[in-house]
This record gives sequence, C-alpha cells and structure tokens, in this order.
Amino acid sequence: MENQTIELLGQIRQGAPLVHNITNFVVMNASANILLAIGASPVMAHSTDEVEEMAAMAGALVLNIGTLDQTWLDAMVRAGRAANQKGIPVVLDPVGAGATQFRTHAVEKILSACRISVLRGNVSEVLSLVSEDVRTRGVESVLGLPDDAVSELMALAAANNCIVAVSGQTDCITDGHRVFRVANGHRLMTRVTGTGCGLSAVTSAFCAVAPDRLLEAAVAAFAFYGRCAELAASVSDKPGSFYTAFLDGLYSAGEAEITKGLKIREQWGANL
Amino acid sequence: MENQTIELLGQIRQGAPLVHNITNFVVMNASANILLAIGASPVMAHSTDEVEEMAAMAGALVLNIGTLDQTWLDAMVRAGRAANQKGIPVVLDPVGAGATQFRTHAVEKILSACRISVLRGNVSEVLSLVSEDVRTRGVESVLGLPDDAVSELMALAAANNCIVAVSGQTDCITDGHRVFRVANGHRLMTRVTGTGCGLSAVTSAFCAVAPDRLLEAAVAAFAFYGRCAELAASVSDKPGSFYTAFLDGLYSAGEAEITKGLKIREQWGANL
Amino acid sequence: MENQTIELLGQIRQGAPLVHNITNFVVMNASANILLAIGASPVMAHSTDEVEEMAAMAGALVLNIGTLDQTWLDAMVRAGRAANQKGIPVVLDPVGAGATQFRTHAVEKILSACRISVLRGNVSEVLSLVSEDVRTRGVESVLGLPDDAVSELMALAAANNCIVAVSGQTDCITDGHRVFRVANGHRLMTRVTGTGCGLSAVTSAFCAVAPDRLLEAAVAAFAFYGRCAELAASVSDKPGSFYTAFLDGLYSAGEAEITKGLKIREQWGANL
Repeated sequence: MENQTIELLGQIRQGAPLVHNITNFVVMNASANILLAIGASPVMAHSTDEVEEMAAMAGALVLNIGTLDQTWLDAMVRAGRAANQKGIPVVLDPVGAGATQFRTHAVEKILSACRISVLRGNVSEVLSLVSEDVRTRGVESVLGLPDDAVSELMALAAANNCIVAVSGQTDCITDGHRVFRVANGHRLMTRVTGTGCGLSAVTSAFCAVAPDRLLEAAVAAFAFYGRCAELAASVSDKPGSFYTAFLDGLYSAGEAEITKGLKIREQWGANL
Repeated sequence: MENQTIELLGQIRQGAPLVHNITNFVVMNASANILLAIGASPVMAHSTDEVEEMAAMAGALVLNIGTLDQTWLDAMVRAGRAANQKGIPVVLDPVGAGATQFRTHAVEKILSACRISVLRGNVSEVLSLVSEDVRTRGVESVLGLPDDAVSELMALAAANNCIVAVSGQTDCITDGHRVFRVANGHRLMTRVTGTGCGLSAVTSAFCAVAPDRLLEAAVAAFAFYGRCAELAASVSDKPGSFYTAFLDGLYSAGEAEITKGLKIREQWGANL
Repeated sequence: MENQTIELLGQIRQGAPLVHNITNFVVMNASANILLAIGASPVMAHSTDEVEEMAAMAGALVLNIGTLDQTWLDAMVRAGRAANQKGIPVVLDPVGAGATQFRTHAVEKILSACRISVLRGNVSEVLSLVSEDVRTRGVESVLGLPDDAVSELMALAAANNCIVAVSGQTDCITDGHRVFRVANGHRLMTRVTGTGCGLSAVTSAFCAVAPDRLLEAAVAAFAFYGRCAELAASVSDKPGSFYTAFLDGLYSAGEAEITKGLKIREQWGANL
C-alpha cells in the first residue's frame, strides 16, 4: 500500500481533481485549504439551484452533515444522486450522528437515497448507525475501538456496499471483506477543528483519482494524512502552529518522508 | 480570584465541557479552535430540528448574533429556552447591537424570551441596549469606558439578573452588585477577527464548570484570556502569527505564567 | 501610481473605513482578517432585515457570489441598491461564474439591478460574462490572459461603466479607456483559499477611501496586495506559514518595502 499511497498522491498533485464539498460552516475554510495544499481543486456549493450541475462536473463529492439543516440536507441528496448518475465517488461524513435524532436520521436518509462510496467518521458516529446504544457526546468524542467493533464496521460496509473508514487512535478501513488498520496520526489533531472533516475531503480527492479502487484510495488517504500530522507534530506540539505546519506538510511532504513512516497493516484473525 | 482562575481552567482542561455554539459564520472556526485549545468540546448546531436537543446536553450555550437572520434568531430563542429549562448557563454576545435595528431588536427579543447568564460584548454594543444615543459603527468599534458608564452596566445587570461583562482596554464585569475590572489583554486582539466572540465562547466554558459562580467564572475567563493574549504578543507583534501564538498559549500556558500576570481588581468608590 | 498606492494605504490605516461584506462562507474569516490587517473595519451581514441599513453606513460594499443561494442573492441586490443610492462603491466578485448557470445568471442579475464600481475576478470568471465559450472549471481555475482578451475586458468595462479588474499571473485593470497591468503576486496565492476574495475585499477598502478615483484605487489595491504576497513568499514557500506571513505583512509592511517592488505599468499598443 505504500507505493499506492505515493502513486495516488502524485496523481492528485498532477491532476488537481475538482472536489465538490457540501460541508459545514466550521470547517469550510480548513477543508478548502487542506484540499489546495494536497493539490486538489475544492469548490463549495450548496444551493439546490446548482448542486446537481456542480456535482456532475466534479471528480468527487463530499457530504458532511455538521451544521446541517433541512435545506442543506435536501441539497446533499440531490447532489449525491447527480454524482451517482455520473459514477462520481461520494464520501459521507456523519458529523455528530448519534448526538441528535436529526443528525442520525439525516445520515439514514442520505444512505437510503444515495449510493455512498466511503462513509468516513469517528467510531461513535459510525457505530451510532448500527447500534441504538451508542450515543455520541458532541462531535469531538472519541471512543476506543474495541476489537469486536470491527465486525460491526464490516457488516455496515457490506450492508451499504461501501467503504467504512473510521478514524481513531488506530484507524479502521474496510469494504466488508478486507480490513486495513492505519496507525498514523497524532493526538493534537483532536485539538484542531476540522481535521476529521479535512480527512473526509482528502479521502474524496484520493477517490477522485482512483474511482475503481476505493478501498485502496481510502487507506492511502488515511495513511498519508496521518503521516503528515506526525510530521507536523515534530515541528510543533501546540495546536495553532501545529495546524500551520500540517498545511505546510500536506503541500510539501516528499515521497521519502511520507513512505518511511507509513503504518498500514491488513488485519487478519479470529475477530473477522 | 487568581486561584479561582487556575482552578476553573483546570476543571475545563480536565472535564472537557461540551459548549453548544450558535454563532456567526465569520468566527465559527476560530471559536471552535479556541474552545479546543483550552480543553473544552465545542459543537455548532443551529437547525431548529436539533438545537433544543443539543443545548439540553451541553454544559453551556453561546448565542452570538453576528451574521444573524430571522431563522437563526428563532433557533437561538429555542435553544436558550431549552438551556434555561435544564439550568444550563447561556452567554449572549450582542455582536453589532446598535449598528442596525435588526440586531438591537434581536437582542431585546432574546433577553425577553430567555434567561441570560452572561451578556458579553464591547461597550458600545452593550450600552446600545440601555441608551438610544449610543450607536455602534460596525462590530469593531471600541469606545472608551467612561467611569459613569459603570453604573449603567450595573443597572443593566440588575435589570436582567445576569452578569454583564464588557471588553475594552480595561474590562468591566458586574453582577449588578459587585464590579470587577480586568486589565489583561492586548491591542492586537482588535486586528484579529473573532477574538471577542472567542472570549464569549471561553466565558461559556468557564460558566460550564462553575454554573453556581457565574461572576467568578466570567472574571476568570476574561483574565485568563487577556493574559494569554499578552503572552502571544510577546511572541509576535503582527496579527497572523499573533493568532497562531494565541491558540498555542491557550492550550499550553502554565499556571505560573498565567497567574503572575493577572490584573484583576474589585472596584469600589463613588461611581458605584 | 506608486505614490498613490502608499497614499491610499495610509488613508485606510488612518481612517479604518467600514467595509460591508456579503461574501461566501469559505472566506468570511479570511476576508475579515485581511481587512483588519490593512486597517479597515469589516462587517459581515446578509439578512434582508438589515443589509440596506448596513450598506448605507459603510464606506464600501463587497458582493461575493461564492456559496450563493437565492436568499443571499436577493440580499445582495438590496444591499447593492442601497449602496448605489448613497454613492458608496460596490465591488462584485463573480466567484465561479461560468461554472454553473446559477452563478452566471446571478452575476447578470446583479449587474442589471445594481451599478457596480469594480468587477474583480479571475479571467475565466470575468470572460464567462462576455463569451459563452468560456467555461470555468471550479473557482480555482486560472487561464492565461491572451493579449486579445484585453479588448474584451475593456468592452465589458465600457458596457457596464465600471472598472474590470482581473487577477492572474499579470493582472489587468481597465475602466474601458485606460489599461493597467500589475505583475505583483505569487503563485502560492493559488494554494490558499480566499486570497482572490480577499483581494476583492482589499479593493473595496481602497475604493472606500478614493470613491472618485476607482481606477487608481483598484490598481493600487492589486499592486499592494500582490507585493505583500511576494514579501510573504520570501518568509515561507509553503501555504500554511505563507498565509500567516501574508497577514503579518498586510499589517506591517512599510512604505519602502512596498514601493520598491511595485510592478505597475500602463499598457499601450495595437491590442487596445
């Protein structure tokens, strides 16, 4: 997977894929800057007067339900369907799912109305879609990932015929059959808003250049992104300057310093 | 008050209180990052489909009327009432009150519909609520705080049974009976957007961990925040890098460097 | 023009003109910080309940159609008309014009309903208003500026009785009669979101202090802004720290380092 990570990153830096984001107000600026840093071309558009047209010309679409309301939800469904018609990958970030009924139902509505390529969230958000017992406490909550949760994620991926990609201390990415774990990343990411949403955006850019290899694309995106966070943490251990260094690294990190630190492994064993 | 400042900050860093923000588009990212830096857990949500549920699970609620429209105003009233029912502190930031009739009336509507714990703004915004002669010129205007304005702020606090907390060269925080002045802060804060709104968010976090000591919480929040600005200004005298250093300091400032520079005094005398 | 650039910048830093922005969600924070850095006073307001009142008290108005919807479009028209009645300069940034029909029609509607002082965009956006063959690919696309496009820009300026100011490797600013080219700027600006929108905001601030010299104001704004980008690029060649240095420079760049690097020339010759 190391080679694929570099290969796909090179394609983004070379091809500048257009990523259409319907995302929340908190992170729009960060998502745009993160996408620009890796070489992609972000566009934000949410009006029902244009989302279908915009989605249809993009290389990938991000649907992120933070700061959602009913109007934006309608726009997401329209954009998702337009992307589906063109075979354009759609990444769904269920920010805050489980925290309120509106968010949980919104994700259910999107999943039933659109074909999602990658479901990217933290474990409490994603597991709230399978278990009524799991409740997130705001968008920043991070539960650990118990080993037996992996099978729930696999089942969710299989049921929705999508990649499920969960961020945490060790990320878990599965298509329902294979499971990859990525151990890159840094705890300072939890002290900077938009790093999770930014990963969804970056995952979209990777999917845009590899629409037929979504599992590989998601794994590569997670590993690359987490590795850049580690590099940034070696520059600063405080959140303001960490974020600046993170953008710098997403833009400038070279092949050697990326690949030598990638921590990707395919998971096998009894819990599958 | 120095000991209380450190005590409450420690509780935030330890307990990560959830702060629900219904705030303006300009500062959402900054407010989230500022709250994350001090150790709180921010969530932004404004849809009438979820604000009551979100507010009811939060430790504090911020209502900030910058970039307001009628829909958001309705959401604020609903969220405020839900917080009131649970006894959750509500901080109101009257951004631009006095600049347009819509903003002034919005504050009046919120104050009449909800019980506000802390009213946090600059002096022109806050005084516009008591005097028709006072008009703000945009949100960045800063009038001086004439000594006799203190009694107006005290009267406003008493009339609304809340803390009135006004930012300026020397801040003024009163519950209508006692008056504290805080001389921490730095003029560069006026060259970075969202520093005032960020203080409202930080005040909410302090209120979340001390809902029965709101006056102390507000004073501590103002002093800590202003002190961190001073520390940042010692790192950089230019606004871009000042803001980065400010986030770094909110996250990492230690007890010693905070407390040795706090400038809090209780005000006594004729003008009370 | 070098002297005028410094003169107008001095007036902004001295007078802190109020700039009313109706702009997109992605760049609101950056636009506010950029305006504060140069010494202007930004305010963001979009509700139809207040835009006319706010625009009427401003020194200049920015209409930026990124993340537009129908409600915001209505607010822009109202604000533009209110500014027109008071003789307040209006800068229109046609973000993404040509990318979707909604954006293109929105610009046409604003141009027909309001008198625009300066039309500020990239070349593909601006040329999409004159030629159906030109289509932008997202908001970040940058075509070169063919020499014969200059006459199209001049015709557009003459037809709308406004300044047309196009950003690119070499900027082009024309009132339909005279044409100025500005060669300041840096390619890293294309890797930071909001730098184009920020230039529209800065152009507004320059127009606010020279409402009777709009061509000079626009040229000065472009040259100053591009020069500050060059200074920032000498501090950092990576986008995160470049942006921080850019804000620092907008705030602190001195007369000498600004003027010695300005690359402004008036264009004469056959292609006019």
